[in-house]
Amino acid sequence: MLSAWGLRVRLGSNALRRYFYLAGTDEERLADLNSAFRDPDVRAVLCIRGGYGAQRIVDGIDFDAVRADPKLFMGFSDITALHVALWCETRLATIHGPTAYGLATGPDCTRALDARQALMTRDPIVMTPDENEGTAQLRLAGRAEGVLLGGNLTMLAATAGTRHRPDLNGAILMIEATDEEPYRVDRSLVQLKRAGWLDGVAGVAVGQFTRCEDDGPTPTVQQVLAEQLGSLGVPVLGGLPFGHGEQQTALGLGVPAILDADTRTLTVQPVGQ
Amino acid sequence: MLSAWGLRVRLGSNALRRYFYLAGTDEERLADLNSAFRDPDVRAVLCIRGGYGAQRIVDGIDFDAVRADPKLFMGFSDITALHVALWCETRLATIHGPTAYGLATGPDCTRALDARQALMTRDPIVMTPDENEGTAQLRLAGRAEGVLLGGNLTMLAATAGTRHRPDLNGAILMIEATDEEPYRVDRSLVQLKRAGWLDGVAGVAVGQFTRCEDDGPTPTVQQVLAEQLGSLGVPVLGGLPFGHGEQQTALGLGVPAILDADTRTLTVQPVGQ
Repeated sequence: MLSAWGLRVRLGSNALRRYFYLAGTDEERLADLNSAFRDPDVRAVLCIRGGYGAQRIVDGIDFDAVRADPKLFMGFSDITALHVALWCETRLATIHGPTAYGLATGPDCTRALDARQALMTRDPIVMTPDENEGTAQLRLAGRAEGVLLGGNLTMLAATAGTRHRPDLNGAILMIEATDEEPYRVDRSLVQLKRAGWLDGVAGVAVGQFTRCEDDGPTPTVQQVLAEQLGSLGVPVLGGLPFGHGEQQTALGLGVPAILDADTRTLTVQPVGQ
Repeated sequence: MLSAWGLRVRLGSNALRRYFYLAGTDEERLADLNSAFRDPDVRAVLCIRGGYGAQRIVDGIDFDAVRADPKLFMGFSDITALHVALWCETRLATIHGPTAYGLATGPDCTRALDARQALMTRDPIVMTPDENEGTAQLRLAGRAEGVLLGGNLTMLAATAGTRHRPDLNGAILMIEATDEEPYRVDRSLVQLKRAGWLDGVAGVAVGQFTRCEDDGPTPTVQQVLAEQLGSLGVPVLGGLPFGHGEQQTALGLGVPAILDADTRTLTVQPVGQ
């Protein structure tokens, strides 16, 4: 499909390996990633999958190579560890968008066209809530401008305490999650709050929280988000179509954005040069 | 049962409340906890349950009251957030042991007798691996002496980045977990490593990892523990009977201990005055 966009595709030499749940050992995956960052012919790095394992290699990235030759970089979910590391170490703006595996649905589906726009044009992304999303009712009035940062909530919490701490002061935080019971979502948000990550955040863009329900005497994930985000006292807009849902709109991280809960839009500036 | 030991039991005034999955609102639970810490007649605080919620109130503890009148404190699992906070803020040695709910099996069961020993005697606790435990095969030779610290691995990772960071340099780390798939156990250990918590740790005591298996092309939790702990290059002793298993031996945190993987013993000094 990427070929249909006129792109030349090169697969990492270890990309098809397996090591338990990982796509190869840490060394193999790191070698592929650094090889791509170092190769001047490579103009974009698209992650094939999320899953688990990025944090195991993130401190071995050749950040000098990234600084010397910035490239487009796209992925989400587990890849949040890489987004955060690239931002903290090199200030690279990246794209929070579908994995290459998730784009295999064909070049003309909405998901792919949105990804193509984010990767290959200078058009801003304008996103509105999807009323069918579980978090669509989440809205706290106001308008915020700031750099858009964040990603998978679980991976953000799993990054707390490491040397990668994005400065969210004045920023718009975007979060999504999958397969996390409400208490785990609460735990991640409380951890980030206790760690000071949310101090001074200008607004919160809430994406998809898929398969985050639980049985028993438990709040819904919507109630958890409403309580924890509501206490921040900043604009919040939920139901945005990014994350593990059917629609996975690509959007930039580390670029200026406007979150307007009143007009119900998230506008994100392009990443591409 | 506590009465059968000659103790006078006082229930927190909000102890029977419910607030979703929590035993009352944060304010209610915190009021009970601080009330107990402030009351000179209270000589021990026994947590009724684990579950989830301690980290939500931990920064509101009246640490001055704890410093002014140190008491015995016992619990585990989610209560790890309190153990860590009490240690970091006041250097209170606490007891990693059954919840009061978990003691309701009667005063003469092994679990209760062990808890009584930890709470009410000055006898050291000597613990040996239970060959039936899933982590019993985990053993890396050597002997380590140091203060014993740790608890529930998930809660330790959820504390990373907050102001509560126990100094594990020269200490023996103890860990247990429940209901965490192997990748989540790996994630917690990688987070603690990346956050520097494990730098200089003298040894690791591994307890029960209950319901931590997963289907699919995944390592077992034993393999995850062997890889992550093996790379530390320190003595490791698995299969110890603390955690969410049937046997839950109480033992002190913040007290001197000896981990001897060669003789297969963990010896922990008493907490009680």
